[in-house]
Amino acid sequence: MEVVVAVAKVSKWATHESGDTLEMVERPRGGISFVLVDGQRSGRAAKAVSNLVARKAIAELAEGVRDGAAARAAHDYLHAYKGGKVSATLNIVSVDLGTRTLVLSRNNPCPVILVTPEGEVRLLDEPSSPVGVYPWTKPVITEVDLREGTTVVVYTDGLLHAGEHRGEPMDLPAVVRGMVEEGWDARRMADELLRRALELERGRPRDDISVLVLQVTPDEDGEVRSLSVRMPIPRVP
Amino acid sequence: MEVVVAVAKVSKWATHESGDTLEMVERPRGGISFVLVDGQRSGRAAKAVSNLVARKAIAELAEGVRDGAAARAAHDYLHAYKGGKVSATLNIVSVDLGTRTLVLSRNNPCPVILVTPEGEVRLLDEPSSPVGVYPWTKPVITEVDLREGTTVVVYTDGLLHAGEHRGEPMDLPAVVRGMVEEGWDARRMADELLRRALELERGRPRDDISVLVLQVTPDEDGEVRSLSVRMPIPRVP
Repeated sequence: MEVVVAVAKVSKWATHESGDTLEMVERPRGGISFVLVDGQRSGRAAKAVSNLVARKAIAELAEGVRDGAAARAAHDYLHAYKGGKVSATLNIVSVDLGTRTLVLSRNNPCPVILVTPEGEVRLLDEPSSPVGVYPWTKPVITEVDLREGTTVVVYTDGLLHAGEHRGEPMDLPAVVRGMVEEGWDARRMADELLRRALELERGRPRDDISVLVLQVTPDEDGEVRSLSVRMPIPRVP
Repeated sequence: MEVVVAVAKVSKWATHESGDTLEMVERPRGGISFVLVDGQRSGRAAKAVSNLVARKAIAELAEGVRDGAAARAAHDYLHAYKGGKVSATLNIVSVDLGTRTLVLSRNNPCPVILVTPEGEVRLLDEPSSPVGVYPWTKPVITEVDLREGTTVVVYTDGLLHAGEHRGEPMDLPAVVRGMVEEGWDARRMADELLRRALELERGRPRDDISVLVLQVTPDEDGEVRSLSVRMPIPRVP
């Protein structure tokens, strides 16, 4: 069995800096965590906030702190630091090898899509608040066994709202269901979800858009772990 | 112009936990850093040490601390924490969008290979000490402009020594030169370097092996950033 994760990410049109931050860290007891933060507004200010929240969550997770406590710590830190005036959404996706589970933590009104090995599409949309604004905010956590055939799709609201101003946003659970039924891999799903969102925004996204797809698949490449990253370099201004 | 990074990593034969840790973090002023740490010995003890060193370096880089200071901090922390009795190698590879340079920081006797856009293969092998043991250890830093056609290969000594007990290790600079001349991409290079190392070790590596390949290439995919991760899940013991 192996876990494959693919992320695709783009900034709001005409801004160099995305207000979305995606970080990844190894869990000291085994496994890996992904943290996706969408800072309020866009551009440099949003980047600073999302960096702050992501950094705090990652630092906690890297020290072995459990996901719920890491999310609470990120909230408390932002709340104390910015006096409750700035918000950010926070999603943590963890592959926990200790418990052999996926831990999905949401501080985000935006839902998470979970497709079970049986093909059931669950929309994790229990009411959830962003971090930073309300006192004692805590995450909504869903924990499921690591089972072959599971797919998880986590995204920022830029994906949800793409095309909305023209009244034609995607029906994300239906799109994801179709992709899973056709056997798409995580890389292809993430790239295509982003491509469709950009198309709905006519190539000029009105918000930062990030999407993460995680799949639990049969073992294909033995004991080798791998990582690939692609980052465009902005032209000299 | 874009930067593409590929990492491949495997544990010593019959150990679940690699003593090598690879972490990645966004730089708050723009860009990305990769930290590769090889903890002394292998298995759980080595993992704990490499996690500690990587975590410290990543925390510093995430706060905007310059690479040389982050490497010094990681050394000082390990040296103070373990009383100078435990060592680890530390490589930091940074894409700095502020200075538009690649910053290659070594605390590792193991060299780094840099191929320039003109095809010159430079072996960065200036004497360099691991962190943790000697007082006031500092990194050897090489900084080069971000130029299309540049390739960097960073690895732990597991790659260097693969096959050595049979007297047939790879001539890494020559192998890398050949791959670059044939126009291989980063992913293919990293996978093939690891594959050859495993072959030289007859599939049973006597040490953890990690290899990171970074290439600066023409822009192929617009403004989209992407990340792919693959992680095998160990069988239930």
